[in-house]
Amino acid sequence: MIEVNINQLVGILTEQILKEFIEVEASGRHVHLNRAAIDQLFGKGYKLTKDRDLSQPGQFVCKERVAVIGPKGRFENVVILGPERSETQVEISLTDSIALGVKAPIKESGNLSGTPPIKLATHLGEIDLEYGVIAAKRHIHMNPDDAVRFDVKDKNIVRVQLYGNRPLIFDDVLIRVSDKYRTYMHIDYDEANACGFEKGTLARIIKKGT
Amino acid sequence: MIEVNINQLVGILTEQILKEFIEVEASGRHVHLNRAAIDQLFGKGYKLTKDRDLSQPGQFVCKERVAVIGPKGRFENVVILGPERSETQVEISLTDSIALGVKAPIKESGNLSGTPPIKLATHLGEIDLEYGVIAAKRHIHMNPDDAVRFDVKDKNIVRVQLYGNRPLIFDDVLIRVSDKYRTYMHIDYDEANACGFEKGTLARIIKKGT
Repeated sequence: MIEVNINQLVGILTEQILKEFIEVEASGRHVHLNRAAIDQLFGKGYKLTKDRDLSQPGQFVCKERVAVIGPKGRFENVVILGPERSETQVEISLTDSIALGVKAPIKESGNLSGTPPIKLATHLGEIDLEYGVIAAKRHIHMNPDDAVRFDVKDKNIVRVQLYGNRPLIFDDVLIRVSDKYRTYMHIDYDEANACGFEKGTLARIIKKGT
Repeated sequence: MIEVNINQLVGILTEQILKEFIEVEASGRHVHLNRAAIDQLFGKGYKLTKDRDLSQPGQFVCKERVAVIGPKGRFENVVILGPERSETQVEISLTDSIALGVKAPIKESGNLSGTPPIKLATHLGEIDLEYGVIAAKRHIHMNPDDAVRFDVKDKNIVRVQLYGNRPLIFDDVLIRVSDKYRTYMHIDYDEANACGFEKGTLARIIKKGT
């Protein structure tokens, strides 16, 4: 007979079980700006200022805000995420899409072909984007070690159970693997509300990728 | 060897397969009014007028509209569903909940204990409700024949696959059986947006009830 320290056993079991889970974050509407947009909206050569870090290394919330203006409505004080990118991108939910009157396609971040136009404005200036509005496809950022552990590969589509207070399973979650990532699942606020998301909601991959 | 009429075969197979599916409807924010609220908002003895029928027998959209007013925001021209009920009930999404500043609990329709207060108004009058705001728990209305066919009972909780363009599985869908119902699944607009709902989106029960 083996003598077991119960506290230690509970600790080991908890750690083993939690390894199966991924923390979920809900992304509100936000924009990423390129150099041309920053120049236009804040002045030539302006540098965005960091307000706070995000979970993904190097990514941050800026102190600056911007208005997003569609044919049917506008949102004031929309969050800008830094750092500066090569292309300006506006990420909204489908609820926002209806309020703005812009038909945002469900797309992976950075995949802007065929996306609709929108206007951005500050009190200093404005810019008419010819394209760049998306509703971000739900996804899991994963570092390469976790990808091995979960047995998934970059661009896999997996089925993920969410443990919010309105339990559901997303059947089409994109895996993105990079050593620049920390492992987090990202959903928008329509999805967050549909699953009863709260800070600390966990997810588990229940069917591996194709 | 049996000779088969291909068109007939396709027809039979299609019918068999479609029997497995349930049509989904997305419910926008709306209110049900009792006599006291109608008197207050439209005048003593006022009768709501039907604009169009809903899928559920006897239920209809009214021509009248009402403002829903919370501590942080208001919605104008909110739909009233008839007929008159014994209790006034305001059904909103969790997105609406945030905009109004009212914490709507996820509840089955009619289950109003512990729900928060809200104000309703028209140009003729207003009423402060002491309770009655819910985010409706996702559910399937089912007639008794379909309940037998799907092998579920009233108040069962089932797992349901949605075939929208953002495929997902709701893990906590309430079954309501009544001979007053036609078989339809009802979700709110957060859920509709999370699953990429469009008119004609179908659902299938993939795990039976408990």
